Amino acid sequence: MKWITVEDLENISIGATLLGTGGGGDPFVGKLMALQAIQKYGPVKVLQLDELNDDDLVMPVGSIGAPSVSNEKIASEEEIYAPAEVLKEFFPERTQAIMPIEIGGGNSLLPIACAAKMGLPIVDADAMGRAFPESQMVTFFLKGYQPEIVAMADSQGNRIVYYPKDGEWSEKIARSITDVMGGSANMVDNVFPGKIVKECGIGGTLTLAKKIGEELTSFSETTSPVNRLLTILNGFSLFEGKINHIERNVEGGFTKGRATLAGISGNKNETLELLFQNELLLAKKDGAVLASTPDLICALDYETGRPITTETLRYGSRIHVIALPSDPKWRTEKGIDVAGPKYFGYDIEFKPVEELMGEKSICID
Amino acid sequence: MKWITVEDLENISIGATLLGTGGGGDPFVGKLMALQAIQKYGPVKVLQLDELNDDDLVMPVGSIGAPSVSNEKIASEEEIYAPAEVLKEFFPERTQAIMPIEIGGGNSLLPIACAAKMGLPIVDADAMGRAFPESQMVTFFLKGYQPEIVAMADSQGNRIVYYPKDGEWSEKIARSITDVMGGSANMVDNVFPGKIVKECGIGGTLTLAKKIGEELTSFSETTSPVNRLLTILNGFSLFEGKINHIERNVEGGFTKGRATLAGISGNKNETLELLFQNELLLAKKDGAVLASTPDLICALDYETGRPITTETLRYGSRIHVIALPSDPKWRTEKGIDVAGPKYFGYDIEFKPVEELMGEKSICID
Repeated sequence: MKWITVEDLENISIGATLLGTGGGGDPFVGKLMALQAIQKYGPVKVLQLDELNDDDLVMPVGSIGAPSVSNEKIASEEEIYAPAEVLKEFFPERTQAIMPIEIGGGNSLLPIACAAKMGLPIVDADAMGRAFPESQMVTFFLKGYQPEIVAMADSQGNRIVYYPKDGEWSEKIARSITDVMGGSANMVDNVFPGKIVKECGIGGTLTLAKKIGEELTSFSETTSPVNRLLTILNGFSLFEGKINHIERNVEGGFTKGRATLAGISGNKNETLELLFQNELLLAKKDGAVLASTPDLICALDYETGRPITTETLRYGSRIHVIALPSDPKWRTEKGIDVAGPKYFGYDIEFKPVEELMGEKSICID
Repeated sequence: MKWITVEDLENISIGATLLGTGGGGDPFVGKLMALQAIQKYGPVKVLQLDELNDDDLVMPVGSIGAPSVSNEKIASEEEIYAPAEVLKEFFPERTQAIMPIEIGGGNSLLPIACAAKMGLPIVDADAMGRAFPESQMVTFFLKGYQPEIVAMADSQGNRIVYYPKDGEWSEKIARSITDVMGGSANMVDNVFPGKIVKECGIGGTLTLAKKIGEELTSFSETTSPVNRLLTILNGFSLFEGKINHIERNVEGGFTKGRATLAGISGNKNETLELLFQNELLLAKKDGAVLASTPDLICALDYETGRPITTETLRYGSRIHVIALPSDPKWRTEKGIDVAGPKYFGYDIEFKPVEELMGEKSICID
């Protein structure tokens, strides 16, 4: 992918919703923003990681907060671009590219809109390989790089620039500001030169998102799109069920909640529990863990195979839950410390989904 | 007063504690900071308002948060200066003077330390003529001037610069950041050019603080220091009593509380209730209002006549409560909207203390 045009947005949006594991902000809203920006300012050039110069500054753009809020309080054009525009004034010569901070829902599409508007290329990479709820959960942080400068903006016209002590303080400050800004805000975080982005970035994730979208929307007579996808991504089918309980609360700048599913088709007597904090973090079948963060847990519509966000999980919905192995960077000791189940308060050891599922993998067709 | 030297600090500290109406941060800690800075960097030149050039930028320096926190988590030298130093980089040529944002406790002495360290003069003025708990409660705000840029710093090394929509948003953002910074922080707020400072500043308040300190520490055979002070400042003696109940809570970046006093000497059967949010805001005798914000309510030690902060009110302490008329800027409709009793949730109309006390003023000697 050399350019992102309006034709690519639907597939990127579908793939990014899947990789976003339920979070990352609303993909529909993000898609409309990117669509409008490309129609107005033209297609966006795509750079691969190895095309970055060592000194070029890359600005990761995204929104922060509770999806329950940002889905209703949709960001204005001005608000989306403000953090990058404020920071560009600090580094007028060196800002050379935009990047998604996470590959997930709206946060994969907002940066496309931002790149179009600012006339900058977008890097085909992100710093999570999925979406995570907290801002220090990035591969830069895993390698010990701390954000030196962060910018935030809200719908009121407030603009904030801060120099955090480290990534964890950056998250604390950003979350507190997000809260006072009404529960959602826009930000540029983890601004690093090309050398560090090449070292830490998870490459090719915009292209991967597009490919996932293509797979899930293409038709074949022999296999279902979901099964094809599981083969391509080394994924596992965890459960097919109907949501019989869903709860979500907006607290501390997140949407936290849980859903329980009663099995349908071959697993009628079984129950799946899904726990989420913006993103799906833990899946337990009758009490036994099937998959946990940092591995990816994704909810797909049972009929269409389209990925859905945690915001759109509804009582009575029939969904297909799948899991994918996370990028190896997250399966290190540091990665599990930063974004493993214990960090989120689940008292279990992380085990890779392929180990947990072992022989259990069910092939549905 | 042309220069502030180490000899002036004790009297400024006493006077600022009185004018601080119980708040403004700990004067003892502030005095030690100013003392150390003047010893290290030399005396501080004092500018009167009319000596400011119209374009000179004046930086008001202060701490923000709950005194209960800042009294125990004492700010480091680096932390005190950081906000002014960060902002000076934005306006290297134009920064010409430091100013106390309020005349109150530690917040009158911190700016002296900051001026000494930065080699800048201090303006003999402030933007409240007393201390108030919220950052939009400044005379700039009364005249419709909004802070365009604010800087904050904490003990961790976090540095924040923000461009608020207006003064009320500035307070919301600052308070939320203060909370995440642990309940106290340092800031530079309401940076304005000399022209606006001359229009809005309440002049001569450092000199007034020093004079109050001189009065309260001088001895005369005929009148008590407190009575002399009441005469000079057109003040009123409200109550002499012993604290028989005190409660304080740190909430939302403030110390909020109430004290009740049982009368001593001539008013044994009477009870005074004092309500505070960092500063003393309301005094009621047996249910009848004697004085309320924006007028100044001050607590003095019964034996020594020295002013005391709300943090040092203790069960069993004997205190003398006095009240002073506020600057006329606060007695306007806008002033009462911004910092009158209703703003703080007390359902009463503001009446000037001289009206409330009327003939009640008691002369004690």
